[in-house]
Amino acid sequence: MSKIYVVGIGPGSYEQMTGRAVQALQCSDAIIGYTVYVDLVKEHFPGKEFLTTGMKKEVERCTLAFEEARKGKNVSMICSGDAGVYGMSGLMYEVGVNYPDIELEIIPGVTAATGGAAVLGAPLIHDFCLISLSDLLTPWEKIEARLLGASKADFVICLYNPSSKKRHDYLKKACDLMMTYKSPETVCGIVGNIAREGEISRVMTLQELRDTQVDMFTTVFIGNSQTKSIGGKMVTPRGYRNV
Amino acid sequence: MSKIYVVGIGPGSYEQMTGRAVQALQCSDAIIGYTVYVDLVKEHFPGKEFLTTGMKKEVERCTLAFEEARKGKNVSMICSGDAGVYGMSGLMYEVGVNYPDIELEIIPGVTAATGGAAVLGAPLIHDFCLISLSDLLTPWEKIEARLLGASKADFVICLYNPSSKKRHDYLKKACDLMMTYKSPETVCGIVGNIAREGEISRVMTLQELRDTQVDMFTTVFIGNSQTKSIGGKMVTPRGYRNV
Repeated sequence: MSKIYVVGIGPGSYEQMTGRAVQALQCSDAIIGYTVYVDLVKEHFPGKEFLTTGMKKEVERCTLAFEEARKGKNVSMICSGDAGVYGMSGLMYEVGVNYPDIELEIIPGVTAATGGAAVLGAPLIHDFCLISLSDLLTPWEKIEARLLGASKADFVICLYNPSSKKRHDYLKKACDLMMTYKSPETVCGIVGNIAREGEISRVMTLQELRDTQVDMFTTVFIGNSQTKSIGGKMVTPRGYRNV
Repeated sequence: MSKIYVVGIGPGSYEQMTGRAVQALQCSDAIIGYTVYVDLVKEHFPGKEFLTTGMKKEVERCTLAFEEARKGKNVSMICSGDAGVYGMSGLMYEVGVNYPDIELEIIPGVTAATGGAAVLGAPLIHDFCLISLSDLLTPWEKIEARLLGASKADFVICLYNPSSKKRHDYLKKACDLMMTYKSPETVCGIVGNIAREGEISRVMTLQELRDTQVDMFTTVFIGNSQTKSIGGKMVTPRGYRNV
């Protein structure tokens, strides 16, 4: 029986892949992914067949993976970060209902939240939420309720997809909502192009974040009430009592 | 100048480490960690000096790392999962204030949330929260507010430290709180000993989870209103509109 590995390749560079992810790609005949991610790994896996589809063609990409596996190939479907965090593993199970003879194995990776956190310092040490600001498949009212609920309960918040051409003011809207419960002085951070060429990071206040323009390759971190800046790093303590 | 790497070794097995984590340990003179984690990596890094401290000796462990680095050694401080998720990287920055001449580099890893998610299927595809049920350093009222806020806003919830000898009924209390807003039929999952010997996983309802006894090596997942069970796997769709 042929097999499909759904593989999180980590935030960018080859050295951020796990050994298990490397092994899966090595024992695959075909490697499938969004063009940008295939380009990131291509040089490290010579002799493999690489298949790509465009950014919004996720269902087609899943079907392609199952059709290639049905031909008897071992296939890796690759995602940046972790395949299970806003990634392809869920859709692979949904499309896989039509291919009951093909086995799926999910291989976890370093997601942008923890990859970016490592660049900024230690922002995610305590309870945190991941929220995507993309309203393509989620009603904005739902996103708004989550921003408010997470802020009220003093979670550290990590935002994925904070901006796009059509959504250039969403981060500003999100900051205004979070400031209902979080102080404008809350320590925040942004990381762009994590573990890739052009990696940038910056620590700032929530008020400053509100007026910062970020792009779609940026991950945004908003601290809890205890988060502090230590030597330019963003650090959340382990709890609410003294160490 | 000597350097300390704070390294997430992933959920257990050597093959879940990233290439960057392996490199850091290889170029370290001393590797420091909680006994259990040192035992997990020891055989793969022959010739290194291994130093351990007990479970609750975190501040001592950090000080030990800085003191060893001050002697001119390169040091790796290892944590299971990701060092920045309920891990040691925050405390290393706090203790590091006393050692301004020593540089810290944080190396991310696969945390139990995404490692466990891969075993269960794809529970974390959409917005999610991590909440630790340990009230050692966090008042229970704060944990309670987070369980309620996250449930009300329909987040997928991943629970760390769901149980211990002293806190044997905390998961039951947490489930009762989450059922204020989440249906008892909500799809849930548990994973124990992720990527280690004796790995187990089970998908069940929130009502069943309430009456399940778990141990401290278990990570618990509670779905959102859209999470479903597909062929025994726990799968959260990408959004609230049809694919």
